[in-house]
Amino acid sequence: MESTTPPIVAETLEQYGSLVRAALDELLREGEPRRYLYDLVADYPTRGGRMLRSSLCIATARAFGAEVEDALNSALSLELMHNGFLVHDDIEDGGEQRRGRPTMHLLHGVPMAINVGDALVVMSLRPLLANVGRLGPRLALRVLEETERMARESVEGQAIELGWRRDNTLHLQDEDYLQMILKKTCWYTTIYPTRVGALIATRDNTDLESFVRFGFFLGAAFQIQDDLLNLVGNPETYGKELNGDIREAKRTLMLIHLMRHATPLERARLTEALAAPRDERRDTDVAWVRQCMDSYGSIDYARQIAHGLAGAAMHESQLLYSGLPDSRDKRFLEGLATWMLERV
Amino acid sequence: MESTTPPIVAETLEQYGSLVRAALDELLREGEPRRYLYDLVADYPTRGGRMLRSSLCIATARAFGAEVEDALNSALSLELMHNGFLVHDDIEDGGEQRRGRPTMHLLHGVPMAINVGDALVVMSLRPLLANVGRLGPRLALRVLEETERMARESVEGQAIELGWRRDNTLHLQDEDYLQMILKKTCWYTTIYPTRVGALIATRDNTDLESFVRFGFFLGAAFQIQDDLLNLVGNPETYGKELNGDIREAKRTLMLIHLMRHATPLERARLTEALAAPRDERRDTDVAWVRQCMDSYGSIDYARQIAHGLAGAAMHESQLLYSGLPDSRDKRFLEGLATWMLERV
Repeated sequence: MESTTPPIVAETLEQYGSLVRAALDELLREGEPRRYLYDLVADYPTRGGRMLRSSLCIATARAFGAEVEDALNSALSLELMHNGFLVHDDIEDGGEQRRGRPTMHLLHGVPMAINVGDALVVMSLRPLLANVGRLGPRLALRVLEETERMARESVEGQAIELGWRRDNTLHLQDEDYLQMILKKTCWYTTIYPTRVGALIATRDNTDLESFVRFGFFLGAAFQIQDDLLNLVGNPETYGKELNGDIREAKRTLMLIHLMRHATPLERARLTEALAAPRDERRDTDVAWVRQCMDSYGSIDYARQIAHGLAGAAMHESQLLYSGLPDSRDKRFLEGLATWMLERV
Repeated sequence: MESTTPPIVAETLEQYGSLVRAALDELLREGEPRRYLYDLVADYPTRGGRMLRSSLCIATARAFGAEVEDALNSALSLELMHNGFLVHDDIEDGGEQRRGRPTMHLLHGVPMAINVGDALVVMSLRPLLANVGRLGPRLALRVLEETERMARESVEGQAIELGWRRDNTLHLQDEDYLQMILKKTCWYTTIYPTRVGALIATRDNTDLESFVRFGFFLGAAFQIQDDLLNLVGNPETYGKELNGDIREAKRTLMLIHLMRHATPLERARLTEALAAPRDERRDTDVAWVRQCMDSYGSIDYARQIAHGLAGAAMHESQLLYSGLPDSRDKRFLEGLATWMLERV
């Protein structure tokens, strides 16, 4: 498939990503104890993430007329919190690799990893307090309110996903999945960054509710693509273990589709295979589930849904941004939806 | 030993504790999903803690002339964060009991428990944002700054303790221990509550550094007494497993004292016994360490240190509070140091 994503998307991610990375590096150089805490705190953030969330926040602020510096602290804070979530997610999911290296709890044990995740979340507060200097107390407090909402949505979404896995819930509809990732993924990946960017640039003078729709479509396309890459990604460049989601019994759109179409006999085997604790799930079972997803077209189905969502995101981006003067940032925001589907 | 703690201490804890508990109950009734998140979130906070930290915050605010309502949101926030820390601590320490019931991760598994701890920490933000209504944006932001500092000190202290255990560090001095609990315990148990109470009441018009000394002495006496109760508490009323700290290889003042006085042969056995993973530590080893602490007077030694610290706290409380008009709250603050030692 030929790429239709405008080059501005990768360029913007590169440009704003470098800015955030530099600010992050400075912040992560400080602090004691080093060996038991801050060296570990600096690990995930310096493994070279995409900086999607922070770039989205800065680009939205810029598209609405703000300067990069107005949004930089909020963007920085979001990357810290995101990495804190990742450390905890990896423990919760039993993940083994993150961005091409072993996960934090495999390197340092669960106790230290929990504390490192806590530290990253705690540290995300500081740039939000530093917002006062540039944005004033009222606007800084509004950003904090948005942060509280976003973090709450995230833990609620995470709770739903963990609950499904613990109870081996399998009778799920696409709507259940979309509701779950609205909370778990979209709020902090796309909704919050765009809301906060617009909030800052308009000095709290715009309707933030419309960003929930755009962010939901964009973020859902992102999450489904993420789940697809876990099945069909290139093992050379993909930073996590392929089929890891099946091993972790993650309720993806593909798994839900498969459960809907499997025969009663297959469904019984699926139920049993997914009920086992992660470490006891057999390689043959993982491979069998993966194969069933192919046979039943679950992967193609999820691809279609992701495309539909990306289309809806593109439509919403027109509504949100068409009134704004042309800018690189505007074109970045409008090009993101196709990038979501074409990234590898 | 006859009690010398004035009854005002227990009365104040009861009075302010009920207020905070009622506010907490209201806040914890809300939220979805219930079964996978908010029912669990409400568990620890409703197991009947002492509400020491929140009462200390409210009493300090009152002693400096504020009303209860001025400090209530900050007190509420602190209890939420405290319970979030407890959930994560229990996983990190492999704790089995908390306030007389099984710990969160034993009831619901490590993944859900990590997320519940995260949720409690996230929820602690909301009352701090609600502070704006009564205190105004500037003062609300100052309380948030104090919170960021306190949370940072706490994760740093936790990191040091976990690092010592992971590396089986045994050549520790009393100073190392005191430095560690200054961060791990004192900041959020005594320093932050008194600083925030005074900050609110004086509208950021007092020197908060002097509260670090008082809070350190008071909090250190509290932590050592806490560690002592783990060895000599009444098994009927003590809410955790007795000798659990030895099982968890916690570096207490008693253990550090014992290492200093043990013979080379005993020290070698100690080192080996403490190096084992928690689940492989034998009951006979735990009992032997406990017995050695008796033989070497480690428990009496720690008691003396705790008494000295409580005395210093009492002295500091004179410096901090003697200029204030007489009040029940002032007498509560002055009586806390003896309560720390006499509580069971």
